[in-house]
Amino acid sequence: MIAGGTVLLFLDLLGTFAFALNGALTALRATRLDIVGVVTLGMITAVGGGTIRDVLLDSLPPATFADWRYYAVAAAGGLIAFLLGRHLERLNRPINVLDAVGLALFAVTGATKAVGLGFGPEQAIVVGAITAVGGGTIRDVLIGRIPSVLSSGLYAIPALIGATTTVIAGALGADGAFTEVGAAVLCFVIRMIGLRFDLNAPAPPAAPERDGGDAD
Amino acid sequence: MIAGGTVLLFLDLLGTFAFALNGALTALRATRLDIVGVVTLGMITAVGGGTIRDVLLDSLPPATFADWRYYAVAAAGGLIAFLLGRHLERLNRPINVLDAVGLALFAVTGATKAVGLGFGPEQAIVVGAITAVGGGTIRDVLIGRIPSVLSSGLYAIPALIGATTTVIAGALGADGAFTEVGAAVLCFVIRMIGLRFDLNAPAPPAAPERDGGDAD
Amino acid sequence: MIAGGTVLLFLDLLGTFAFALNGALTALRATRLDIVGVVTLGMITAVGGGTIRDVLLDSLPPATFADWRYYAVAAAGGLIAFLLGRHLERLNRPINVLDAVGLALFAVTGATKAVGLGFGPEQAIVVGAITAVGGGTIRDVLIGRIPSVLSSGLYAIPALIGATTTVIAGALGADGAFTEVGAAVLCFVIRMIGLRFDLNAPAPPAAPERDGGDAD
Repeated sequence: MIAGGTVLLFLDLLGTFAFALNGALTALRATRLDIVGVVTLGMITAVGGGTIRDVLLDSLPPATFADWRYYAVAAAGGLIAFLLGRHLERLNRPINVLDAVGLALFAVTGATKAVGLGFGPEQAIVVGAITAVGGGTIRDVLIGRIPSVLSSGLYAIPALIGATTTVIAGALGADGAFTEVGAAVLCFVIRMIGLRFDLNAPAPPAAPERDGGDAD
Repeated sequence: MIAGGTVLLFLDLLGTFAFALNGALTALRATRLDIVGVVTLGMITAVGGGTIRDVLLDSLPPATFADWRYYAVAAAGGLIAFLLGRHLERLNRPINVLDAVGLALFAVTGATKAVGLGFGPEQAIVVGAITAVGGGTIRDVLIGRIPSVLSSGLYAIPALIGATTTVIAGALGADGAFTEVGAAVLCFVIRMIGLRFDLNAPAPPAAPERDGGDAD
Repeated sequence: MIAGGTVLLFLDLLGTFAFALNGALTALRATRLDIVGVVTLGMITAVGGGTIRDVLLDSLPPATFADWRYYAVAAAGGLIAFLLGRHLERLNRPINVLDAVGLALFAVTGATKAVGLGFGPEQAIVVGAITAVGGGTIRDVLIGRIPSVLSSGLYAIPALIGATTTVIAGALGADGAFTEVGAAVLCFVIRMIGLRFDLNAPAPPAAPERDGGDAD
């Protein structure tokens, strides 16, 4: 129904798997869980962003719910993390790469879906970023962590750049599938550069008394 | 509109009351709250799962919101817990029984609603389980606890079994009301057996360094 | 489309700005955040309640998402808080006043929207209160705090009174814009009186063993 529909679906499912695996492993490292918890948190990481996206875009029931392939793929990622978690936990780098893949793909597919449904560029950019960071945010809340996207690293910003690139390229008439892959690569590269050089988004100016973290 | 509609409504309201009472008592024991907090958390426990269900099923406005009987019943449960909490807190067993009743009824009514709206078996099973565990999950997040459904006990699994039984029996042409009660009893019994013998869902294989709980 | 539509929009945007500024400042004081976190939490405080409102009222896509003015205003409030946070943090009183303004306006506009869409008085009152307290509740969950609306102060109660006044006055045929401003003033005054005299909603009767807070 939209240009590059098959590519979009494939990218979306790939991002779903990457997020499920990464989300389940993150949850495993953070707290004590059983199989229900690990698989559920993997699935929520994977489909949470897309569910919020589809609520905001009035595209209910959510694709992540109506299309069983999303949660089959998400459940598979969660189960693999559950079974192999002990071994995978040591693989920090591939986990971060997987997460960046999911971030990039979801930012692009989220923005593309919004444009395809007739929403304006500002909505498409916002919803692309929400699709990308939403699932991990819900997961962090469920395991009692303040979502890291709010406090450090370059995470939302590459997602916003990926979504913005998608929207601008689409407005300039670029080919759907090509644009999507290019914007995803841009988001992915920025995210990986941020990780490699430990870049952070700007912190509030001069708040010296808040060094202790959870002082409150 | 669906077979056994009146039975479904009655079971749904009964589950709503059970969850409101149990949810408010759980919240009361976990943290310091005022009347607004106790009643709100009781109501959220009671109607939260059904609200998520109706978002996923594109059945908005949610039945739990559009039909005042749901929140009248939920508010009554919350108020009773507020007024009698001190006495009810010692009644651990009836509270657990009430909670298992709500779990069983919501798993069945959630799955039945999904089937009635034309969704497939995999959606009906997922949404039945979400209806059953969703309200308590939101409550736990609001009172700063990692939802217990993720970490221990048999909670989501009986809900999944109850929802699956509902879907299979329905597909085999079994009578609506009879099926619903039977599947709810099955879920309830499994939940109570799990409580009685302290059964847990499988934990991740061999994660020896995570014994301390919140070490993080 | 509803009487007083322009006034309603203006009040809604004013409340959005007040909540974004206040929400971002509250978040800044509670935990360590970067610019993404401060602006995001300001925006979520500002548009969260309206988003839940529009899900419950089946008015998707949410006005707070479809109309760019909402998040432009919300982003502006969040950015101001980010840039001036250090200075604004000392201004406790104006921040509380702003928050009361947002509370009053959202209770009224939420209830008015529900009535305008044909919902009954009980739905309008519930949704008015949810619109008013929803954004701050999501913000508190994201920064790891138990939402203060659940535990102390007069916060949900003035919102319920403001929403109820709106609904009753509307049912008696009062003029839209006049009613809305009057009900908002009433809610605002009750909230400010509660703050000034440190009033609290009733606590559960006699729970002596729970004095320590998070004893759990």
